[in-house]
Amino acid sequence: MLEKTLNKIMPIDESWIQSVQSRTDQLIKPIGSLGRLENYYVQMGAIQQTLTPSVERRAIVVFSGDHGVIGEGVATCPQRVTLQQTENFVRGYTGMCAIAKQANAVVYPVDVAINGEVAIAGVINRKLAHGTNNIKKGPAMTEQQAIKAIEVGIEIVNDVVKAGVDILATGEMGICNTTPSAAILSVLTGLDSAEVTGVGANLDDDRLRNKIEVVRTALAVNEPDKDDPIDVLSKVGGYEIAAMTGAFLAAAANGVAIVVDGFIATVAALLAVKMAPACKDYLIPSHKSHEKGAIIASRLLGLEPPLDMQMRLGEGSGAVLMFNIVDAACHMGKHMITFDEADIGAV
Amino acid sequence: MLEKTLNKIMPIDESWIQSVQSRTDQLIKPIGSLGRLENYYVQMGAIQQTLTPSVERRAIVVFSGDHGVIGEGVATCPQRVTLQQTENFVRGYTGMCAIAKQANAVVYPVDVAINGEVAIAGVINRKLAHGTNNIKKGPAMTEQQAIKAIEVGIEIVNDVVKAGVDILATGEMGICNTTPSAAILSVLTGLDSAEVTGVGANLDDDRLRNKIEVVRTALAVNEPDKDDPIDVLSKVGGYEIAAMTGAFLAAAANGVAIVVDGFIATVAALLAVKMAPACKDYLIPSHKSHEKGAIIASRLLGLEPPLDMQMRLGEGSGAVLMFNIVDAACHMGKHMITFDEADIGAV
Repeated sequence: MLEKTLNKIMPIDESWIQSVQSRTDQLIKPIGSLGRLENYYVQMGAIQQTLTPSVERRAIVVFSGDHGVIGEGVATCPQRVTLQQTENFVRGYTGMCAIAKQANAVVYPVDVAINGEVAIAGVINRKLAHGTNNIKKGPAMTEQQAIKAIEVGIEIVNDVVKAGVDILATGEMGICNTTPSAAILSVLTGLDSAEVTGVGANLDDDRLRNKIEVVRTALAVNEPDKDDPIDVLSKVGGYEIAAMTGAFLAAAANGVAIVVDGFIATVAALLAVKMAPACKDYLIPSHKSHEKGAIIASRLLGLEPPLDMQMRLGEGSGAVLMFNIVDAACHMGKHMITFDEADIGAV
Repeated sequence: MLEKTLNKIMPIDESWIQSVQSRTDQLIKPIGSLGRLENYYVQMGAIQQTLTPSVERRAIVVFSGDHGVIGEGVATCPQRVTLQQTENFVRGYTGMCAIAKQANAVVYPVDVAINGEVAIAGVINRKLAHGTNNIKKGPAMTEQQAIKAIEVGIEIVNDVVKAGVDILATGEMGICNTTPSAAILSVLTGLDSAEVTGVGANLDDDRLRNKIEVVRTALAVNEPDKDDPIDVLSKVGGYEIAAMTGAFLAAAANGVAIVVDGFIATVAALLAVKMAPACKDYLIPSHKSHEKGAIIASRLLGLEPPLDMQMRLGEGSGAVLMFNIVDAACHMGKHMITFDEADIGAV
């Protein structure tokens, strides 16, 4: 399934980019004056192959998984919060859910590897394990498990696309998952742990120093191959991170735009783009996460997040905030008229 | 009327700020992790004096006026575009209108000083003049006219508030109005013209140098008193800029939040805050305009625009893009639950 998905990913059509860009430049405004809205309009138009793209139907897939490395003191809150917040996604009580409600987006919570049993209907059960193994001591999972986790993301997105969707986003819930994310980013960039490891949900200085050391040790123990995304995911990744990588790949394979959230999602997207470079054409940035490493990851991906909300919640909260902005870009293309239509000279 | 409005402006209630902040800190998320959304929730809650503020009813007032200084070669497009685009606000064809449609905001176009006659129903006629005089040669208008223009903004906002509105924004249309805006900012900051004067809608280097010189001359000829906002507006301002200043004052006087757009709006807001410092409590930033001087003006006002869209269209296009983000903040307060309600420990 992974192979089939990778083969389906095509760059967006160059002639459509030119057509939509050409219309953008004829709209009644100084050329380029709507900045990034123009970029999103061109990207969405080229992806949907129309001058009037639409993002009416919005969905976010949120993957939950736990991490064996939590025993190393890299989190400020207990592991059971992963389970509790996943259940709260169904109830609509979390930060991401509140924003999704405002944006009229459907939330699909998925249990990929929660260390506990979901006791509420509405969470999609694709549990592969009860969390990863402790990456400080050995690999997070096997290669087979990493591939399976990617395929969970692919399957879920395939299903959502089949049901009908115009734009997607991904989110995650996994207490302490900034630790494996920092480890992945350190591998991919060759940067030292200290340069990519941040405070997560409010670690103090001592615990941050410990977290940096944990990431460094995890890399030394596992020696992941930076040119092999599956190897990286299986050695220092996480199930929900792998599922997000799969979600990005499947969105691109289905020709659907997908909004990238903050640090963890950006790292997952980096792996997806490493597996299929054309996947990049379908990614839309959202917010500048304040987790250390996020800016580095975005830059590597060539994404420039337009929202500076100083958010660091996770869950996909920044991504869902982006839906209405992409919608505004679509409205620009739909409702503005050209200079010819308006019969005024160039402004 | 101006005096009465100024007297009505009160700082937002400190105890309400504390109540809403306290609820924010109890919601199921790490403290502060929703960043600026939390700030907007607290601000809106305190303004509306409720834990569940709402921004369902949205409106933008757009003031149009022309400028005598256009004869000095400071614009890239002809003056008639002010009239044409104002008519296009009614038709819903412009960039701001497209975004307003997405945000479900009502657009109120107002003719304050267009140099031409509006030939379409739907533009509110409050014409005070056919544009300003050339500020390079003398004052833009009389003090009486500046006060009248401010009062147009006050009256329009009072009417919109009477009809029912939860959040406001202002926009403007006035070919070459970045020139008077730069002049105002230069007066208020004491900074040289070159430091606050930008390319507007795409001036080339030669024309930018000319524009900088025009601003410098306008200040030398008029010698506006930086401590007297009315004097500044009448000498180097514009009718639509003065009306925007009035709109900010009236929003604050009515206890309604108002979103500040880019460069021109921020300069108008600076004058409003100079006239009534508590007006600041009702201002919400939107986008980082790419016009030179915008960052300086925002910083002076203590506003940190969260949107980096690289937009420089004007019309209020950045401000309307902000409505859904403030709405997301309101949804956060309405739909998230507290740790007590969720029965989970602090995350």
